[in-house]
Amino acid sequence: MNDQIKYLLQESDIPTTWYNLAADLRNPPAPVLHPATHEPITPADLLPIFPENIIAQEVSTEREIEIPGPVREIYKQWRPSPLFRARRLEKALDTPARIYYKYEGVSPAGSHKPNSAIAQAYYNKVAGVKRLVTETGAGQWGSSLAMACNFFGLACEVYMVRVSYNQKPYRRAIMETFGAKVTASPSPTTEAGRALLAKNPESSGSLGMAISEAVEVAAKDPDTKYALGSVLNHVLLHQTVIGKEAALQMKLAEDEPDIVIACTGGGSNFGGMAFPFIGEVLRGERQPLRIVAVEPEACPSLTRGRYAYDYGDTAHLAPITKMHTLGSTFVPPGFHAGGLRYHGMAPLVSQVVEEGLAEATTVAQLESFAAGVQFARAEGIVPAPESNHAIAAGIREALKCKEEGISRAILINVSGHGHFDMMAYLDFIGGKLQNYAYPEEEIAMALAGLPNVGDV
Amino acid sequence: MNDQIKYLLQESDIPTTWYNLAADLRNPPAPVLHPATHEPITPADLLPIFPENIIAQEVSTEREIEIPGPVREIYKQWRPSPLFRARRLEKALDTPARIYYKYEGVSPAGSHKPNSAIAQAYYNKVAGVKRLVTETGAGQWGSSLAMACNFFGLACEVYMVRVSYNQKPYRRAIMETFGAKVTASPSPTTEAGRALLAKNPESSGSLGMAISEAVEVAAKDPDTKYALGSVLNHVLLHQTVIGKEAALQMKLAEDEPDIVIACTGGGSNFGGMAFPFIGEVLRGERQPLRIVAVEPEACPSLTRGRYAYDYGDTAHLAPITKMHTLGSTFVPPGFHAGGLRYHGMAPLVSQVVEEGLAEATTVAQLESFAAGVQFARAEGIVPAPESNHAIAAGIREALKCKEEGISRAILINVSGHGHFDMMAYLDFIGGKLQNYAYPEEEIAMALAGLPNVGDV
Repeated sequence: MNDQIKYLLQESDIPTTWYNLAADLRNPPAPVLHPATHEPITPADLLPIFPENIIAQEVSTEREIEIPGPVREIYKQWRPSPLFRARRLEKALDTPARIYYKYEGVSPAGSHKPNSAIAQAYYNKVAGVKRLVTETGAGQWGSSLAMACNFFGLACEVYMVRVSYNQKPYRRAIMETFGAKVTASPSPTTEAGRALLAKNPESSGSLGMAISEAVEVAAKDPDTKYALGSVLNHVLLHQTVIGKEAALQMKLAEDEPDIVIACTGGGSNFGGMAFPFIGEVLRGERQPLRIVAVEPEACPSLTRGRYAYDYGDTAHLAPITKMHTLGSTFVPPGFHAGGLRYHGMAPLVSQVVEEGLAEATTVAQLESFAAGVQFARAEGIVPAPESNHAIAAGIREALKCKEEGISRAILINVSGHGHFDMMAYLDFIGGKLQNYAYPEEEIAMALAGLPNVGDV
Repeated sequence: MNDQIKYLLQESDIPTTWYNLAADLRNPPAPVLHPATHEPITPADLLPIFPENIIAQEVSTEREIEIPGPVREIYKQWRPSPLFRARRLEKALDTPARIYYKYEGVSPAGSHKPNSAIAQAYYNKVAGVKRLVTETGAGQWGSSLAMACNFFGLACEVYMVRVSYNQKPYRRAIMETFGAKVTASPSPTTEAGRALLAKNPESSGSLGMAISEAVEVAAKDPDTKYALGSVLNHVLLHQTVIGKEAALQMKLAEDEPDIVIACTGGGSNFGGMAFPFIGEVLRGERQPLRIVAVEPEACPSLTRGRYAYDYGDTAHLAPITKMHTLGSTFVPPGFHAGGLRYHGMAPLVSQVVEEGLAEATTVAQLESFAAGVQFARAEGIVPAPESNHAIAAGIREALKCKEEGISRAILINVSGHGHFDMMAYLDFIGGKLQNYAYPEEEIAMALAGLPNVGDV
């Protein structure tokens, strides 16, 4: 029996280009609108918050976009990331399924986020920017950008969603170790933050609020730009190194995935894994396969949100995009997968689900942690709470294989490790975690506030 | 310019044997004595706490000992570990030194400890053992053994030094996530623990105390054995995969180390890196080079301890060995490098220092964390507090190179990441950490309690 567990690529196998799904989609992405005028946004509108090179990438329809040399050099520190066959998990589940997982937790910051953080820091450096400001939920993005800014000599400022700031002091610590300035959001340091605090001084924050604060800070200082860790096209683009490598590694394993699974909050981890596979399907180079986006039960934009134009942030400073949304004022309950607490979804991810190229499902908090503990005991890796959503969905599929007596190849994207989320694991083991119901009323209220953009 | 930063080996380069330094040392290791009789210990004396296969390995003088297939299979999950050229750190230091570091933090448990934990769990499983009990300081060893026990279906119980138990709740969390039972030591669950608590109910614990508790539990149950994470010959043996790989990787880099540096508490991380290099020197296959063991200023067994027979634990249940010691009742101050808070030193490490094959130095807490922060900002990896000692010594050497205008190759062993030690980093950044002076009086008192073993 071939009992190989790791499929390792060479440095020369690190992709030399990112894959741009926009080149292969049958329908062009819906135009992005200005938050004030509701008119299609122009590159010039975006200049206060993004440098020109990133704006160009955001709207590019080129299929393959070259990864700059200095970015690829830094990728080499941890890429190609390993693809594992989860043989011990298969045994624990007693399933005929062939479970593979791509593990992005080997990056120094512990998740897939540096794939884009390094690229964004590089482009900003090239454009002469001095400081980057961003938001972070779980802290995976914030710590990645803090690290990347160091590498390129940029200052870094992070607005961290308050519930995560309180739940995850170690995440703040790693950002500060990297020299970043970290502020709990909503904060009194911005107009947006002060307005939110005036409405609710106890606000636990949300990604939407933190984005508002960060965008405001960037827009006010010509030497400062904003960096976003998900949602936008260029961010998902940078993450496609994951799926590109995984496709190569599945070939090394002499196998092909029947199901590809990733968690999705803003969509960068899902898009990074799924888009290269979807692209191959669209170009007729691969048989159609199931691609599954997994979101938390309590923040289910893809499965229960509306596909509509909505604001990207709470204070309506960020562009309006067409996406699955729960309403920009919706504040998700304080579950532990902070990276999945966003009201919207990447427009490109929304579009592939809308066009039937991918499906979506939800997992509740307790099922996600049970899956994480089972995975940790079998594989030795303690996954991030976000990743646990993908693992839970993967376990469901593996058990279905057992029930049906069918062996399918399941490829799971494990976005990162949970080293900074161990209190959540302790609470889960101690029976202190709960499920959060679908917040029906809050979402209905938030959806009532969708912008009236007319006929675009 | 060749600006390669990572030297990656293939799975087939994972060593097939461990290297046993005892085979090459000019003088045989001093005999180990029974704690009660002070007579040379026999394998039979050790059977209550170790299985026969491990005892055989402990006393072996075979040069190369085969790594069992199932152990090597599990090693493949993260081995070969990467060797990096620290180009960004070199630049930050503006040094002509060529700095390399071997990074063991890529293991799922986050340090080098699984190299031995996997092997020990395997041998115990083969021997029919049902449960392993151990001690842990920083938690690196405890979490590694907890993980390894899962892989082989063994139960696991960990006595964790109280100061670390309190400082590092995340470490306890990861052990419990792996299903281990964790008890703060000294505890009321053992005779040894109760005696220690009777003397000092506020005791912050020490590795010596935790070892006493774990050994006692193992000795009382025939289905339970004890596992030690450092100090003993077989543990250092298992760690030699580090140095063996590093030597291969330095060849890939077309370079040879002038200085090899590792931190040392019990000695497993140092021995694992240094012994293969020392062996080559002893066999005349390599030019002599500087090998530096780095210990904390406040627990300096190698640099300021006595080379004498002493007990391995506080309650005098573990064997007596000849080693550099600060006295078995010495309780080190509560600095953050919990893995270096041991009163003694591995007999083999003591012997190589005594015979002039390696040198030893100390680093105080503040210098160690300053080095860790500088390393993190340059390399993106936040090291464990233990590893920071080796990094600090490496930075000293790199700065000396600059002063002298000489380029030397410095190879640093980075034993693990500091993801579970982030509060210590926060405290350091916040100016809340302190240096601990050399605890002269406490050590003098403890040394007065050395066993009188006569002429061995």
